[in-house]
Amino acid sequence: MKITMLIYPQMTLLDLVGPLQIWSLWPDSETQLVWKDTNPVPSDSAATLVPTHSFADAWADPDILFAGGGTAGTFALLEDQEVLDFMRDRGREAQWVTSVCTGALVLGAAGLLDGYKATTHWMAMDMLSNFGAEPVQERWVIDRNRATGGGVTAGIDFGLALMAEVAGEDLARTVQLAIEYAPKPPFASGTPEEARPETVELVKTLFASQSN
Amino acid sequence: MKITMLIYPQMTLLDLVGPLQIWSLWPDSETQLVWKDTNPVPSDSAATLVPTHSFADAWADPDILFAGGGTAGTFALLEDQEVLDFMRDRGREAQWVTSVCTGALVLGAAGLLDGYKATTHWMAMDMLSNFGAEPVQERWVIDRNRATGGGVTAGIDFGLALMAEVAGEDLARTVQLAIEYAPKPPFASGTPEEARPETVELVKTLFASQSN
Repeated sequence: MKITMLIYPQMTLLDLVGPLQIWSLWPDSETQLVWKDTNPVPSDSAATLVPTHSFADAWADPDILFAGGGTAGTFALLEDQEVLDFMRDRGREAQWVTSVCTGALVLGAAGLLDGYKATTHWMAMDMLSNFGAEPVQERWVIDRNRATGGGVTAGIDFGLALMAEVAGEDLARTVQLAIEYAPKPPFASGTPEEARPETVELVKTLFASQSN
Repeated sequence: MKITMLIYPQMTLLDLVGPLQIWSLWPDSETQLVWKDTNPVPSDSAATLVPTHSFADAWADPDILFAGGGTAGTFALLEDQEVLDFMRDRGREAQWVTSVCTGALVLGAAGLLDGYKATTHWMAMDMLSNFGAEPVQERWVIDRNRATGGGVTAGIDFGLALMAEVAGEDLARTVQLAIEYAPKPPFASGTPEEARPETVELVKTLFASQSN
């Protein structure tokens, strides 16, 4: 498995690391973390990551192409022709074109979701249709060879689900046990439907302040 | 909040990134990712992280001290006096001494869990008592100012729970919604109790091969 994962300034680190950790346990797989050049790339947290390859040196035909999300850093990509050209080119060759969170907007801006069902972070759901995608409110969505996950932590469910789809349930079950994925959220506050109204308002304010 | 998180070669990236992502949304917080020096540190996946500070330059008195886990890379730390001295010293000054997964073994080897209830990855649970800790099979355990999480993905539950303990439930609920933490594991395979027997055997084999 040749796995190509986009990294970029101010990306939301956990969007990337959920599937990265899961797929790192895929036998006979190799992962490239790619950006325009190989200088270290700061995330939206204290962590700065070193790309393994520049766009120029990345595989021409990955098995999986992946983009994670973020806020302002992601929105900047939607008008970055160098990034969109790379994603469009590799997306044409890839077996699977995938995203977590607002990474779906990057796929969309590269023209890779036109006519496909897809999902994203609950706050960005309305934006998917701008790119010809059909928004679906699910934890993850697989439509032909497009696989998209919801916001941030959905990348773990998405990563396991895609692994099961491609390599079978046995491998995904093994990895799920290895990463002890038996979640126990401390509160009922993971979706706008289950969260308190005042919590929803707080997150909308936070998101608006980070998106500029 | 001054948050000090240990990073080290072959660490399991998701152990770190669950709480790192959650705590990055803590108002008025700053996080140091520390190692012996500031050269890039490879994880157990394709990702290499850049430390923000060396041990010498790290805060003397963090509010939270954290260690994540791994396999061979973590076991190497248990006999690394430079690392154990750093953890012991900062652990004495920290408001909270914390870990996810086999990071608990690092705390234990530094003498920081003697007489405390603690948890770790299900495969490493028996090793906790070597360090005078009392193993507890829970998703996370808080005993006085020690907070420990279970294996890998438990870091998300742990990170939110500690945030609620320190800063109150409202902030933790807000962050939980921001990271859309409404998990939907694709299989019932997250603990040895719920997984199939053959899956448990596969993970034990995988772990044994990675621990040497």
